[in-house]
Amino acid sequence: METELSHELGIEHALFGFTPFPAVAAALSRAGGFGVLGAVRYTDPDELRRDLDLLERLSGGHPYGLDVVMPARTVEGVTEADVEAMIPEGHRRFVEDLLDRHGVPPLPEGERSGWRITGWLEQVARAQLDVAFDHPVRLLANALGPPPADIVARAHDRGVKVAALAGSAHHARRHAEAGIDIVVAQGYEAGGHTGEIATMVLTPEAVAAVDPLPVLAAGGIGSGEQIAAALALGAQGVWLGSLWLTTTEARLPSRALTEKLLAAGSGDTVRSRALTGKPARQLRTGWTDAWDDPAGPGALPMPLQGLLVADAVSRIQRHEVVPLLGTPVGQIVGSMTTERSVRAVVDDLTRGFDRAVRRLSRIAGTGIAGTTASPASPANAGGGATGAGR
Amino acid sequence: METELSHELGIEHALFGFTPFPAVAAALSRAGGFGVLGAVRYTDPDELRRDLDLLERLSGGHPYGLDVVMPARTVEGVTEADVEAMIPEGHRRFVEDLLDRHGVPPLPEGERSGWRITGWLEQVARAQLDVAFDHPVRLLANALGPPPADIVARAHDRGVKVAALAGSAHHARRHAEAGIDIVVAQGYEAGGHTGEIATMVLTPEAVAAVDPLPVLAAGGIGSGEQIAAALALGAQGVWLGSLWLTTTEARLPSRALTEKLLAAGSGDTVRSRALTGKPARQLRTGWTDAWDDPAGPGALPMPLQGLLVADAVSRIQRHEVVPLLGTPVGQIVGSMTTERSVRAVVDDLTRGFDRAVRRLSRIAGTGIAGTTASPASPANAGGGATGAGR
Repeated sequence: METELSHELGIEHALFGFTPFPAVAAALSRAGGFGVLGAVRYTDPDELRRDLDLLERLSGGHPYGLDVVMPARTVEGVTEADVEAMIPEGHRRFVEDLLDRHGVPPLPEGERSGWRITGWLEQVARAQLDVAFDHPVRLLANALGPPPADIVARAHDRGVKVAALAGSAHHARRHAEAGIDIVVAQGYEAGGHTGEIATMVLTPEAVAAVDPLPVLAAGGIGSGEQIAAALALGAQGVWLGSLWLTTTEARLPSRALTEKLLAAGSGDTVRSRALTGKPARQLRTGWTDAWDDPAGPGALPMPLQGLLVADAVSRIQRHEVVPLLGTPVGQIVGSMTTERSVRAVVDDLTRGFDRAVRRLSRIAGTGIAGTTASPASPANAGGGATGAGR
Repeated sequence: METELSHELGIEHALFGFTPFPAVAAALSRAGGFGVLGAVRYTDPDELRRDLDLLERLSGGHPYGLDVVMPARTVEGVTEADVEAMIPEGHRRFVEDLLDRHGVPPLPEGERSGWRITGWLEQVARAQLDVAFDHPVRLLANALGPPPADIVARAHDRGVKVAALAGSAHHARRHAEAGIDIVVAQGYEAGGHTGEIATMVLTPEAVAAVDPLPVLAAGGIGSGEQIAAALALGAQGVWLGSLWLTTTEARLPSRALTEKLLAAGSGDTVRSRALTGKPARQLRTGWTDAWDDPAGPGALPMPLQGLLVADAVSRIQRHEVVPLLGTPVGQIVGSMTTERSVRAVVDDLTRGFDRAVRRLSRIAGTGIAGTTASPASPANAGGGATGAGR
């Protein structure tokens, strides 16, 4: 699975993995892919530094990247307290009622909320980047479009490529104009924030919109066959997130969540504003149902919703309150039925990819006779027309 | 594009096209694909007979099929009048108010409603099938899952294959158990009735669910690259509907609608109950907005909604009321920017498919060395390892 982009980055497979776990990112980079550590959950720059040190050590010299959540335009000087003050009292009561109804205890004395995403705050994201640029990261990805221009310049000065997620061709074009190097086209079926255009349609649209910039396809990709599909659509690689959640290297907040992921089908996710205020695909739970209920108050806009629910999500995770327990994950969750090492997953992906390409070559057999030999007919391996394989 | 299924049906390309227009179906069959005529709009069996005669004449001996909309279980003896009587008065008023607001005149005196789908009625669908079985149709497809068991048996007695649309792996499995021969896996991004699972995820799930029955992928497919993607996912062919709407052989009810389709982007469709009562992807219009508005009465269940809106849709089409004018169409509408003949479209599809497969073979280059020659390096056509192409 070698494309211009993977060649340029010096990796074996054009296989990019987003993960909040350094051990997963490192294992993927070691397996020939490209691990990208999600930074949004690091409120403390020292914690990020420690995990990037770990990632550097574990990755054995293979390249890796960092994913931040940074608005292109930020309001200077806005603190978390300023945003907290904007949350209506009725919404706070709705959260408490919901937790009470499910008998969710508070966090144990002295334990702080683990689920708290503040990486979108200007000063937090910039502190994260100061740490990142101290490390040999090769890619800086941003979940909210292009990072601010000075950050793009700073990355380029250091030879760091910049990637930006896009849910439409229009956004992809705008990102390209902001000087980024790679577009991650995130389809409707993806876990996390998504638009409504499916990967099958979005990928070629994004490719056409930003040509010659490379596009990574994201959403609906959890097998080698799906990688082949994404590359057939013109992507120069794939961006996988959900698939790593059930690897043995992942460290989910609770065993019950892993069990839920292993049991879930492709129809058990929902695109909901329940977690961040923007539509993000996640496991459908009592939590998402409550926020998506037209009779309820509905989710607040980003970033208010994320702040509003941070403690609640921590409590649900801490006490393993199964009916409310969820996580962002894509529709491929239906195919995540066993726990395997990252290496085993990558081996499966490359084998499935090769199998799919061989099948396609057979199907194309007569159409591109003379250029693709049919593996089903060794006698034809010398080249030349063959209509036999399908 | 030859698969086991296309081989069995004696067609050149595993390319199935659903269309309400006999001329489009015939042109596709003549171009090496497989045209499938949609029967749902034929209220009069004689009209269907005339169009099937035309299709037989135009297809020049190439095989073709018929698509019906038949519930697996029907309530005997229910007439259109019985269903009409179930429509609440408030909904009728909502329709009239909406048409008044947009100044939509009535149909001219003596002109009957053209948009009227009654094919779902037991007696109408059975009359359609009597006509169909008088013609050498090779495939009977059903949009609402498997047809009743006696119809499946009747089709099989005549050597007619039976296909059924499915929006989930669960439905696909149920259809297979009902004895059908082909599953059409209809992804979220498709035009018309769809579920919420995107083609990228649904196709391999359906393939695994009904193996060894063949699966046709539907939804998000309008280019050869997208066909390659669908076949990489394990489909034995593709089922295309939207793409034919802007071919020169199509006969849309108004020129304004063609213009709207040519101008629409991939984000201009919506999955709405506005037309039939079940979620169906279509152009987003003032009509769908009114029915999807939480402040409105909301759509009635199938088949009430279809009956309720039939005359209104005819009036909107007849008078080309552009803000309300729509049609079922998938997210690929963004790529439908020119009017071309069916033959030109098929040529494009096969060329794009070959191009995508060649690119994939180059990307797989090192991975499946020795089984697939790299077209970029003619010197390697003798077989053997090559890592050059990408």
